Amino acid sequence: MTQPTLTRSWVDSANGHRDFPLQNLPLGVFSINGSAPRSGVAIGDSILDLHAALDAFDGEARRAVEATAGGQLNAFFELGRGPRVALREQLLALLAQGSKLQTREAQVLHRAADCQMHLPAKINDYTDFYVGIEHAQNVGKLFRPDNPLLPNYKYVPIGYHGRASTIRPSGTEVRRPKGQTLPAGQTEPTFGPCARLDYELELGIWIGQGNAMGDSIAVGDAAEHIAGFCLLNDWSARDIQAWEYQPLGPFLSKSFITSISPWVVTAEALAPFRKAQPARPDGDPQPLPYLLDTRDQAAGGFDIELEVLLTTASMREQHLPAHRLTLSNTQHMYWTVAQMVAHHSVNGCQLQAGDLFGSGTLSGPQPGQFGSLLEITEGGKKPIELASGEVRKFLEDGDEIILRARCSREGFASIGFGECRGTVVAAR
Amino acid sequence: MTQPTLTRSWVDSANGHRDFPLQNLPLGVFSINGSAPRSGVAIGDSILDLHAALDAFDGEARRAVEATAGGQLNAFFELGRGPRVALREQLLALLAQGSKLQTREAQVLHRAADCQMHLPAKINDYTDFYVGIEHAQNVGKLFRPDNPLLPNYKYVPIGYHGRASTIRPSGTEVRRPKGQTLPAGQTEPTFGPCARLDYELELGIWIGQGNAMGDSIAVGDAAEHIAGFCLLNDWSARDIQAWEYQPLGPFLSKSFITSISPWVVTAEALAPFRKAQPARPDGDPQPLPYLLDTRDQAAGGFDIELEVLLTTASMREQHLPAHRLTLSNTQHMYWTVAQMVAHHSVNGCQLQAGDLFGSGTLSGPQPGQFGSLLEITEGGKKPIELASGEVRKFLEDGDEIILRARCSREGFASIGFGECRGTVVAAR
Repeated sequence: MTQPTLTRSWVDSANGHRDFPLQNLPLGVFSINGSAPRSGVAIGDSILDLHAALDAFDGEARRAVEATAGGQLNAFFELGRGPRVALREQLLALLAQGSKLQTREAQVLHRAADCQMHLPAKINDYTDFYVGIEHAQNVGKLFRPDNPLLPNYKYVPIGYHGRASTIRPSGTEVRRPKGQTLPAGQTEPTFGPCARLDYELELGIWIGQGNAMGDSIAVGDAAEHIAGFCLLNDWSARDIQAWEYQPLGPFLSKSFITSISPWVVTAEALAPFRKAQPARPDGDPQPLPYLLDTRDQAAGGFDIELEVLLTTASMREQHLPAHRLTLSNTQHMYWTVAQMVAHHSVNGCQLQAGDLFGSGTLSGPQPGQFGSLLEITEGGKKPIELASGEVRKFLEDGDEIILRARCSREGFASIGFGECRGTVVAAR
Repeated sequence: MTQPTLTRSWVDSANGHRDFPLQNLPLGVFSINGSAPRSGVAIGDSILDLHAALDAFDGEARRAVEATAGGQLNAFFELGRGPRVALREQLLALLAQGSKLQTREAQVLHRAADCQMHLPAKINDYTDFYVGIEHAQNVGKLFRPDNPLLPNYKYVPIGYHGRASTIRPSGTEVRRPKGQTLPAGQTEPTFGPCARLDYELELGIWIGQGNAMGDSIAVGDAAEHIAGFCLLNDWSARDIQAWEYQPLGPFLSKSFITSISPWVVTAEALAPFRKAQPARPDGDPQPLPYLLDTRDQAAGGFDIELEVLLTTASMREQHLPAHRLTLSNTQHMYWTVAQMVAHHSVNGCQLQAGDLFGSGTLSGPQPGQFGSLLEITEGGKKPIELASGEVRKFLEDGDEIILRARCSREGFASIGFGECRGTVVAAR
């Protein structure tokens, strides 16, 4: 357990910060006043400029900081766990109370509110999984009430290739896509703006060191290949999806934008919040040997609380509080992140530093825990009512979706992921 | 029509060359004796080293050559049609009989046999379409004899995201993948090497200038966004595919490797071989307006003959000729490449220079024209017999698949694409 729970930071806003206390130290890429994007670490309401502070680091940690140059963390991701841990140890010392770095605060710290966040890495390939079993069941029920899960679900960590070019950091507007949809009862499609725009609450996984094509990564080695985590909103056009997805899967219904939170939360920061992978219910098959690892079963899960908030333009005008759509948890993942890595590479597929995985929608089994409007409104049949008097089946122009994540445990400082926001704007 | 049919080249092997006469001039990236990869143009049995010949170019063509620096053609692709055409015009003059460049042959030409070919560009995103309607029907018949095409097929240019990291140039070995498969009659999967390894004959399309996220590319503008064409073998593990693909599409059954021919054949070289898009059969719907363009319908197709050859290790030992598996044509595409570009971007999805599209398998309707073993052997039910006395349902270790393409028209020099080869090696 690497969390120094009692240590306080000389960055006052970090102490007790909801997302970024000293115990988190996520990495990201930011710019300020139009500067070139550069690497930083979130600490309270501030960002530590890693390159401005370069000479405060030494050894392996310094090489790690040097690898974050150029406004993309890919080379840093590729270094793997050793340099990342070394960097974390020096950051913990440099940002703790009593560190001499405080005398250089004006040079090395920026107010986060003054900064713009960018994608942390060049994303080579993006894969979206489907490991949220409650989501798979909820969606399956809409189509197959008696048999919601397909026969492969409990054997295969289902995933598919997503579009890398349209992944954007939190805050990027979400342009309503246009496309073909099949009106109810019709046999010919029409073309126009999506009428069933949805969010999907997902955990994002950043790949660190890659593998050579032809090699596989064992479950037990997967941690060496994971650089960190973020939140991911897999925006979905349900009407386009329903018409296009047979037989090769979702395509334009997903590729208009995918939003992520910009801070890379490391496995080290999340170490206190690891959990056993929940036991499989009686009757469920055991994972095939290539997906089974005792240590992974014992500690490969996470206890991360996930939240989705909605505000409409009218709610914001009236200063009404955001409406909570979802309160869920990563424990609803049927497969661990290590199993996802092992499965993805078992055919010899090459993973590369900066690849991104989405977990799939992480719904819980109960109302209030559903991670998409498709589930919450049962495909639009049960609209939700908002404090503004508005109702929603799916998202309207002006609606903003905010994803948050929070890790809490007795005796440890809570940490969060920061936000993943997006506001819907009208189709062109 | 830009093809100077009567002009001969001072590169003797180019005159009458099956693939690379003066009228083709495809671009690629090569290295020699372990040198850094650099850009070149195929001419007969030779490669013109563009940078060694840089000072022979001027104006827009010279800027085009400069954009090919660094061993990746992405920046050149991004320049678009004008500079590409300017480069072609100067190449035609420089490589024609009588050009002064001949005096520098030793400096600017390499024997292709001495060179290693690389991927021509960094592939940002790879999308595989499914526009070969005969293939869709042949495969659909195996599962749904009475209703082979799904209802969306004649409205939607079906496509899905593919894996970019495992695209490799012709000649790269094809490691048999391992994965989960469901044995016939069983309800639980097993894990092991793929037993139904297949090829798929496809046309590859290189994207040139991209679009901003949120913008769409009209069918009539699509040519401005296409940099060129290649051959693509979408190697497929049929047994893995059958078990994994519901509900999100093919994943590990395709991502172990995709092979492409390394030369980028330009639209200018293919201009004499454009055709009207074949008229839709009576009863088929017209494309929706965003997919319809009169000029595209009149000249958006291609007449490119496509061929697939197989040799086994035993056939090569016995010096037996290759077995022709497929002789097909691009005219079996139900959608044009312009329609593919327009559809892909209609939701605002950003395309980028160096993106690659696959057409989907381009089978014809008749035996002998099928573009995969799945179709030829009806899913393994009808093995093929080879001159060596061997039979094949699917590919065995040691088998080599060779894709070729050829364009011929009375009064014009024939051109080809070069080869896309791959030999199957045993699973690890």
